[in-house]
Amino acid sequence: MISDRKLEHLLICKYYDVEFKNKTTGFEDIELIHQALPEINKNDIDLSTSVFGKKMESPLFITAITGGHPVAKDINKNLAIAAEEMNIALGVGSQRAAIEHPELADTYTVVRENAPDCLLVGNIGAPQLNLADKAVEILDADILAIHLNPLQESIQPEGDLDARGFLDSISKICDTVDIPVMAKETGCGISSETAKDLVNAGIDYIDIEGAGGTSWAAVETYRADDRYLGETFWDWGIPTAISTVEVTSSVDVPVISSGGIRNGLEAAKAIALGADAVGMALPFLKESVSVEDIIEYINKFNESLRIAMFLVGANNIEELKNSNLIIKGETKQWLEDRGFNTTKYSRR
Amino acid sequence: MISDRKLEHLLICKYYDVEFKNKTTGFEDIELIHQALPEINKNDIDLSTSVFGKKMESPLFITAITGGHPVAKDINKNLAIAAEEMNIALGVGSQRAAIEHPELADTYTVVRENAPDCLLVGNIGAPQLNLADKAVEILDADILAIHLNPLQESIQPEGDLDARGFLDSISKICDTVDIPVMAKETGCGISSETAKDLVNAGIDYIDIEGAGGTSWAAVETYRADDRYLGETFWDWGIPTAISTVEVTSSVDVPVISSGGIRNGLEAAKAIALGADAVGMALPFLKESVSVEDIIEYINKFNESLRIAMFLVGANNIEELKNSNLIIKGETKQWLEDRGFNTTKYSRR
Amino acid sequence: MISDRKLEHLLICKYYDVEFKNKTTGFEDIELIHQALPEINKNDIDLSTSVFGKKMESPLFITAITGGHPVAKDINKNLAIAAEEMNIALGVGSQRAAIEHPELADTYTVVRENAPDCLLVGNIGAPQLNLADKAVEILDADILAIHLNPLQESIQPEGDLDARGFLDSISKICDTVDIPVMAKETGCGISSETAKDLVNAGIDYIDIEGAGGTSWAAVETYRADDRYLGETFWDWGIPTAISTVEVTSSVDVPVISSGGIRNGLEAAKAIALGADAVGMALPFLKESVSVEDIIEYINKFNESLRIAMFLVGANNIEELKNSNLIIKGETKQWLEDRGFNTTKYSRR
Amino acid sequence: MISDRKLEHLLICKYYDVEFKNKTTGFEDIELIHQALPEINKNDIDLSTSVFGKKMESPLFITAITGGHPVAKDINKNLAIAAEEMNIALGVGSQRAAIEHPELADTYTVVRENAPDCLLVGNIGAPQLNLADKAVEILDADILAIHLNPLQESIQPEGDLDARGFLDSISKICDTVDIPVMAKETGCGISSETAKDLVNAGIDYIDIEGAGGTSWAAVETYRADDRYLGETFWDWGIPTAISTVEVTSSVDVPVISSGGIRNGLEAAKAIALGADAVGMALPFLKESVSVEDIIEYINKFNESLRIAMFLVGANNIEELKNSNLIIKGETKQWLEDRGFNTTKYSRR
Ligand SMILES: Cc1cc2nc3c(=O)[nH]c(=O)nc-3n(C[C@H](O)[C@H](O)[C@H](O)COP(=O)(O)O)c2cc1C
Ligand SMILES: Cc1cc2nc3c(=O)[nH]c(=O)nc-3n(C[C@H](O)[C@H](O)[C@H](O)COP(=O)(O)O)c2cc1C
Ligand SMILES: Cc1cc2nc3c(=O)[nH]c(=O)nc-3n(C[C@H](O)[C@H](O)[C@H](O)COP(=O)(O)O)c2cc1C
Ligand SMILES: Cc1cc2nc3c(=O)[nH]c(=O)nc-3n(C[C@H](O)[C@H](O)[C@H](O)COP(=O)(O)O)c2cc1C
Repeated sequence: MISDRKLEHLLICKYYDVEFKNKTTGFEDIELIHQALPEINKNDIDLSTSVFGKKMESPLFITAITGGHPVAKDINKNLAIAAEEMNIALGVGSQRAAIEHPELADTYTVVRENAPDCLLVGNIGAPQLNLADKAVEILDADILAIHLNPLQESIQPEGDLDARGFLDSISKICDTVDIPVMAKETGCGISSETAKDLVNAGIDYIDIEGAGGTSWAAVETYRADDRYLGETFWDWGIPTAISTVEVTSSVDVPVISSGGIRNGLEAAKAIALGADAVGMALPFLKESVSVEDIIEYINKFNESLRIAMFLVGANNIEELKNSNLIIKGETKQWLEDRGFNTTKYSRR
Repeated sequence: MISDRKLEHLLICKYYDVEFKNKTTGFEDIELIHQALPEINKNDIDLSTSVFGKKMESPLFITAITGGHPVAKDINKNLAIAAEEMNIALGVGSQRAAIEHPELADTYTVVRENAPDCLLVGNIGAPQLNLADKAVEILDADILAIHLNPLQESIQPEGDLDARGFLDSISKICDTVDIPVMAKETGCGISSETAKDLVNAGIDYIDIEGAGGTSWAAVETYRADDRYLGETFWDWGIPTAISTVEVTSSVDVPVISSGGIRNGLEAAKAIALGADAVGMALPFLKESVSVEDIIEYINKFNESLRIAMFLVGANNIEELKNSNLIIKGETKQWLEDRGFNTTKYSRR
Repeated sequence: MISDRKLEHLLICKYYDVEFKNKTTGFEDIELIHQALPEINKNDIDLSTSVFGKKMESPLFITAITGGHPVAKDINKNLAIAAEEMNIALGVGSQRAAIEHPELADTYTVVRENAPDCLLVGNIGAPQLNLADKAVEILDADILAIHLNPLQESIQPEGDLDARGFLDSISKICDTVDIPVMAKETGCGISSETAKDLVNAGIDYIDIEGAGGTSWAAVETYRADDRYLGETFWDWGIPTAISTVEVTSSVDVPVISSGGIRNGLEAAKAIALGADAVGMALPFLKESVSVEDIIEYINKFNESLRIAMFLVGANNIEELKNSNLIIKGETKQWLEDRGFNTTKYSRR
Repeated sequence: MISDRKLEHLLICKYYDVEFKNKTTGFEDIELIHQALPEINKNDIDLSTSVFGKKMESPLFITAITGGHPVAKDINKNLAIAAEEMNIALGVGSQRAAIEHPELADTYTVVRENAPDCLLVGNIGAPQLNLADKAVEILDADILAIHLNPLQESIQPEGDLDARGFLDSISKICDTVDIPVMAKETGCGISSETAKDLVNAGIDYIDIEGAGGTSWAAVETYRADDRYLGETFWDWGIPTAISTVEVTSSVDVPVISSGGIRNGLEAAKAIALGADAVGMALPFLKESVSVEDIIEYINKFNESLRIAMFLVGANNIEELKNSNLIIKGETKQWLEDRGFNTTKYSRR
């Protein structure tokens, strides 16, 4: 049953080592350039940003984590209270469970109840796009996220393996649902080619969810009888820093950089690479036992983002986007090979 | 006696650490690019390929391992049953033993008996090309492989050290035997120069067997009184990923990429670099005690290749060959220095 | 109280690991080129240099460490006796404490008393520039250093966070105080942009204090309730070797290279990259219990600088500046990306 | 007394770790290219080479090690018997001791007594060039080596530190002594500039003795009261592979590549980079207790060189010099920066 799998995922992610092993996000190859004379007032730095007309206090999404299990309800409630209080965005996990098992609906609706004003993101998998309307209906979300996760579908025993016609379905959903639609990966990243396809299909927002953080091949390795497949694909995917450049350089919609982002310094790098906001899942799962812990974590994230902005002299997110940075090492090599100019970021 | 040496080799390979130490295949420098929207049905992916008119279920060769010893007979029998069942290709070890000691012939012929339809590859060393006709006669193979192993010949006490005239002999064999002839290394790889010489001599198929997997200098180190020579050449050779590009970029015959390949993800990279199939020896030796183990291993290999193909949106081997990839690090540097364009693979 | 914080800083720096963890000064990427035939007399090598008309025996600054606490008085006294004896330059820590608490003045004035002739550097933070005149008055310094430390201000609980108008204030100070004015960082380095701004504002001397040595984020981590911010910015900054090139290539004032310099070989590299002198703080704090230890340390530093000069055949600091060197690795990549020609150093 | 220091050096080199720590010879960045079809007979490979009309069985020098102490006499005797038997070249340590203490002369002359025909190399330091005539007279050497060791002179307490006029003295010696004169470093390498100066002064042969093997700063660290200087310069010098290219690309005299060479594979790389022969000291000191051990070591070296030549298809030293090779990593970067074309070796 989906519900049991959901609990298993939560427990594995919380207690096991599920992050990439031999691949990183690539943010260690990105260097913002210290400005000893920022000439700004750190206390005046404005972290806020607007998403489809809704203002957020800081450019942070708690990306899709859960729903569909009593334990998930508690987690979602805590996340919702904190997100509302801090005025950041919050996504729920795949709503498939709620649609197929209506008795589980409250494990999702608990979010809107506790977060009446925050930017709320619904979630449905690309293989279940027929459930999209229902998903929107149930949740009262501001945006619907369609998650793409061909790797997880491939490794988990119960996977949906027919990925034909997804673009068409996405295109239809974008036409029919009356809230903006976002596409998100789940830890393997979005390539420039896929980004263009998505935007052509009508997608309004891309959440890249690149490689370097939670690895779903890793998660499924712990559930599998045989570790071979999970081990083989543990480190598969486009590193987050690279995917951020691939996508922001190729399409014109707003972009969330995510997958392995763990503090405001990495967020600042992602934004200076062109992202509009960042997202995190695993760290929030780990703090999710209490509202206080979540809020403290968001405060620390915000403060570290603010410090990074202070040190490059950026008063706000727009100015941060124009900060100089260096791209080094394999991240540089990958991007240059794929035709992206990496030196343009270093003197602008 | 050859037969004892064969057993020694089997035991050393099975129980000791005989792989390269400070050199890798280079496949970690190759990155396939995740496509979050594959737009294909994973269940419809076709792994099959044709070799000289014979169809294989997946592009996989069990490359030459053994023969010439009662233990070898058991191994060959198991490999044959599995290869037949899974419809992949299978090579025997050097047939010299069978020719010089006819009473050992059944340790080879057991293969065709148990694998009447599978693509079977005979094997003879370049120094014993006078035995080629006999080798073909004994085995009823589909292809004859001529192995080149100057390093092993140099390190082992009993080595054949006169390598003059090999190209001439190869040329004659290609003219006279009535099955296709393949040249293979045994773990040091084929350079672009050697590939051209081989094809000019009439070779129909090249199995590169590059550096990064089983090291024959390593194997012989365990047999030697003094470790000096073995240690010195333990990591000698052209890394498999590099050799794959050197050969596929220089000649027009089909190419097997091999030497240290251990799963379908590496196989996918090799094929995207231009190979037509891949080969493995050591992993099959380790599974060779039971037919079930071998079959399970092949199934896992096939499944991992299928997943890699799904994630880059390749329906079949031909499409996989046109997938984009990045070549990084020292692999890139080596290839560029040798005059091969490495960026052409990244946007095609 | 400032005074307690000063003691805390001293103790933490002396007994804890406060240096950068995953970032280095970059000097390991700089290679001076051995000349087996130096054709000079090592005993005649002249390490001396002149700063604003005052001659120093070797191009070495003990950069700002302390003041404002009885313990600081002892340290400053020892440093002063040694600096006077060895005729090198010496800086005091921030004089804010002495100005706000006049009873602490002697913890600074002890320096001039014990070092009547040595080049003495006053110190005041950019946020306290209104105290600059007073600082000059109290100390009888030869140069006034204005320290820039936005990172430390950000991490420490008591930080000054309004960095607006610093350039203007600096400009005014440069006009009004009648000794030369130097700008210094405290371990995050000076970028080429900041260097130009400083020189335009009238600064006479730049002490880069780059990343790779003492990390003030690290120091504050030990004082903080929560390690998150300190850990996140522990390795923030422009590596010293890089900052040295950024600054010396962009402005025409004399430059001190500092931050993680630990011996005369690194000093020689810094000078060959364009610096006029080098500075060190942490190593001197560690030797500060006795005058003898400090003198011995300076002697060893001088001797290692002299050996490095001997091995590249440089008779004096001017010749050292023209020695050939290679810039490798990420240091090269950073500098090239930022538009600095790194090969010009290798054949001049 | 010199004699005691000599014994100390022998013991330290034999029992302590005196090799470079964070710098290598650079030979791991050099890749010879395996040729699976060498088309030569390994048994016919000719390792011999001629030096100033004298034929050596293999291109190997036992470079200067010792003399001037009873223990040295035993070592020199063993080395001499082995060198004569294997017909390779042999150098003695600095002859200064014998000249200043005539009673120690037999610790050197023992070499010619036991090696009447082998190529014998005398040795005198650049600071003692006035003793050159005497050195030639005492030893009946075929070549006189002048060693350059400014680093060791700098670190050891008793060092000669006036290096002025060395080129002039060398020039005079080259005119007056009637045997060829060679210049050698002792583990820091020769730069292209120094090589040109040496050849202009009349030097007939250069033994580069680069960085990566025995470090004299290391040796002196064990003798010093304070480790500071030795630690600082432990890894100083031009890596052997780099120095080999710097010198062979800049001058037209024969070149010995040495410093950290440990087997025939590294020797093959050095020769393919342009060297005429290679040299080793430390490994021979370690084998020097018995003639048999030395001979066995030379045999293994020769055999490994022969295998390397076999695998690239080189019949003799001249052909080896034209083998293709790749230069990777920092070795490539250094050489390119210094103006040497590194790709010319990869396709010739
Ligand atoms: C326990 C858990 C459950 C998740 N479930 C979903 C999901 O239902 N839908 C979805 O789009 N992503 C899901 N994700 C993926 C995250 O949204 C995110 O893409 C991924 O974890 C990478 O980010 P991270 O490294 O910050 O964790 C889940 C992640 C975790 C840790
Ligand atoms: C035990 C063993 C015996 C082998 N015997 C032969 C042989 O007789 N003929 C041959 O061409 N290759 C032989 N090989 C080499 C393999 O075919 C293959 O080239 C090499 O092992 C590299 O592939 P791997 O890393 O997958 O093991 C042998 C390999 C092993 C492990
Ligand atoms: C204990 C301590 C106190 C310091 N106090 C000051 C200060 O008051 N003013 C200042 O400009 N720099 C101060 N610094 C910074 C140093 O001058 C220097 O910029 C920094 O430590 C980097 O150099 P290092 O790696 O050689 O220590 C202090 C450093 C230390 C270790
Ligand atoms: C114990 C010992 C003594 C040496 N004495 C001399 C010497 O007297 N003259 C000289 O030119 N080189 C001398 N050398 C240096 C060697 O000839 C050689 O340049 C250096 O050791 C680097 O080579 P390696 O790494 O093979 O040891 C000595 C080396 C050793 C190990």
